[in-house]
Amino acid sequence: MRREIAEQGAAVAATLAEVRRRAAEVRAAASDRRRILFVARGSSDNAAIYGRYLVETQLGVPAALAAPSVATHYRARLDLSDALVVSVSQSGRTAEIVEVQRWAGSMGAATVAISNDAESPLATESDVPLTTQAGTERAVPATKSYTSQLAALAGLAATLEGGAGLWPLLDRVPAEVTRLERAEEAVAGAVDLLAASDDVLVTGRGLAFGTALEVGLKLEETCLKPVRGLSYADLRHGPIAVVGPGLTAVVVAAQDGPMLAPVIELAGDLAERGARVLAVGGNPALAAASTYHVPGPDLPEPVAPIGLIVPAQLVVESLARRLGLDPDAPRGLSKVTATDPS
Amino acid sequence: MRREIAEQGAAVAATLAEVRRRAAEVRAAASDRRRILFVARGSSDNAAIYGRYLVETQLGVPAALAAPSVATHYRARLDLSDALVVSVSQSGRTAEIVEVQRWAGSMGAATVAISNDAESPLATESDVPLTTQAGTERAVPATKSYTSQLAALAGLAATLEGGAGLWPLLDRVPAEVTRLERAEEAVAGAVDLLAASDDVLVTGRGLAFGTALEVGLKLEETCLKPVRGLSYADLRHGPIAVVGPGLTAVVVAAQDGPMLAPVIELAGDLAERGARVLAVGGNPALAAASTYHVPGPDLPEPVAPIGLIVPAQLVVESLARRLGLDPDAPRGLSKVTATDPS
Repeated sequence: MRREIAEQGAAVAATLAEVRRRAAEVRAAASDRRRILFVARGSSDNAAIYGRYLVETQLGVPAALAAPSVATHYRARLDLSDALVVSVSQSGRTAEIVEVQRWAGSMGAATVAISNDAESPLATESDVPLTTQAGTERAVPATKSYTSQLAALAGLAATLEGGAGLWPLLDRVPAEVTRLERAEEAVAGAVDLLAASDDVLVTGRGLAFGTALEVGLKLEETCLKPVRGLSYADLRHGPIAVVGPGLTAVVVAAQDGPMLAPVIELAGDLAERGARVLAVGGNPALAAASTYHVPGPDLPEPVAPIGLIVPAQLVVESLARRLGLDPDAPRGLSKVTATDPS
Repeated sequence: MRREIAEQGAAVAATLAEVRRRAAEVRAAASDRRRILFVARGSSDNAAIYGRYLVETQLGVPAALAAPSVATHYRARLDLSDALVVSVSQSGRTAEIVEVQRWAGSMGAATVAISNDAESPLATESDVPLTTQAGTERAVPATKSYTSQLAALAGLAATLEGGAGLWPLLDRVPAEVTRLERAEEAVAGAVDLLAASDDVLVTGRGLAFGTALEVGLKLEETCLKPVRGLSYADLRHGPIAVVGPGLTAVVVAAQDGPMLAPVIELAGDLAERGARVLAVGGNPALAAASTYHVPGPDLPEPVAPIGLIVPAQLVVESLARRLGLDPDAPRGLSKVTATDPS
């Protein structure tokens, strides 16, 4: 896992180049489609949440996440002739996702498959395969395959954009990811904090919300810490009442954008209620409102999530070792996920 | 809260009658709309999740949950001229939801507002106000306003249905809700189990997934128990590794439908890993796979959620008292929710 964390700058750069090569095909598949529907599970679902916010906020195109069981168990028939369906699966072999993509095609959708294996059924059966260039990922917890998915999703959005706003931002991403891969000393205090925490909550909002969920999932899978992942709004709407001393709240944010001010205020509220606040990313004001701060990428909010997860990956990998666990092969996880036992 | 739990059969019946009275207006607003977008937060969001599955599985109409911040913070412009937007808010005064409905209208959507107050801004500004008939709800945790929202959503789906499949099922709901309101002795063992549990996870799938999240939210808000709410699939995809002795898993299911078999298998897996399993609803096979079983409604899956929450409300109310808490006025909650401090 440690080595693969360090390969992400290169993987992201190669993936962005691959998306550029496929630009004409992507545009053709998306023409005359009014909305985008994402299909994914697990880490890929956290990537898709980023994709959904990016498409709605940057392209002004309605987007949503599919409920896979509507296809696989309820066998509903939906008119998807106005939809571009983007399926995301690292292996491209998760049976449920392959089945949903097949169903979506039969319901009239155009399909783009983001996978890390051009030979997988998800890729070969799609209208446009967008293959992430992460190379073989040996550790079970997704790291470089996840950031490559984010890059593919951002590249997809940049390709469909009318203007040229996103590509110049994306050009800055690989170097920033590479810089963060090496910033191990910056996370040591966060590892100490989490090692001493039994009750952990992770939160974020908007474009960085998927990153918050991914941090939570990694802590659960790799460090076997029970974690609650809550959106900013859902936390404000009730469960903040259960916040008190003993809780560690991980707050994830980009360095700018309309979510930064409310997230800084939330961090202050959490600290006031006695929680220890671990900030990942944000700016000096967020750092000041928190117990401990791990610096994030120097990237604007629309592309920040691609770098924001990297310091959190370093925290998770180091925390697992500290807890005597093997970060490369966590208990109960396998590389190709199965929602329903086959 | 106890008294309001007992008023739900009548509130559901009155709400269904109100939807029938508005049927022509609802059909007119929905004509030429290809998809339905739900807007909600908190308990209302859990109701909307039910609405989303119901619309996709029973009507074959694409549906999704809006991300409110796309409107309120990112101020995106989306073409919603093909969408019916259904906003759900008990008070009808949650500023964020009112703002999103206003935005949706300006983006071309037709709007239906499900609120419990016909004079609220959400209701008066909508194209079609669907007022739930719960009467004044004094306890802060939503009970009769929540089941009335579910009834309004199911009535909406029944109204938009081509055939006549849902109304006959809905006609059976009020009597079943009334029966469950009185089944207090059936939940005593569940209260004992949860009172002794520090680590609680709630799960469900498909049409009953929103119910699972609502059970989790009520346990957090009213009993101040930290709870993780996870979909069946998300649990299977990793976090099941953190399941072990000490955990109490609450598993929620209807008595039939395509989700029952996988949920029974999941309950067995959770028990095998040492978790105590508390089943709410389901059938005798789910009861046999669980540590303790609270019977649910004798209703088919599409309308079961309206009754399925009732025994869980009784558990929550009784557990709060057992823990020395006031179920009517939990710490840190108010009746009109605010996502952003004003």
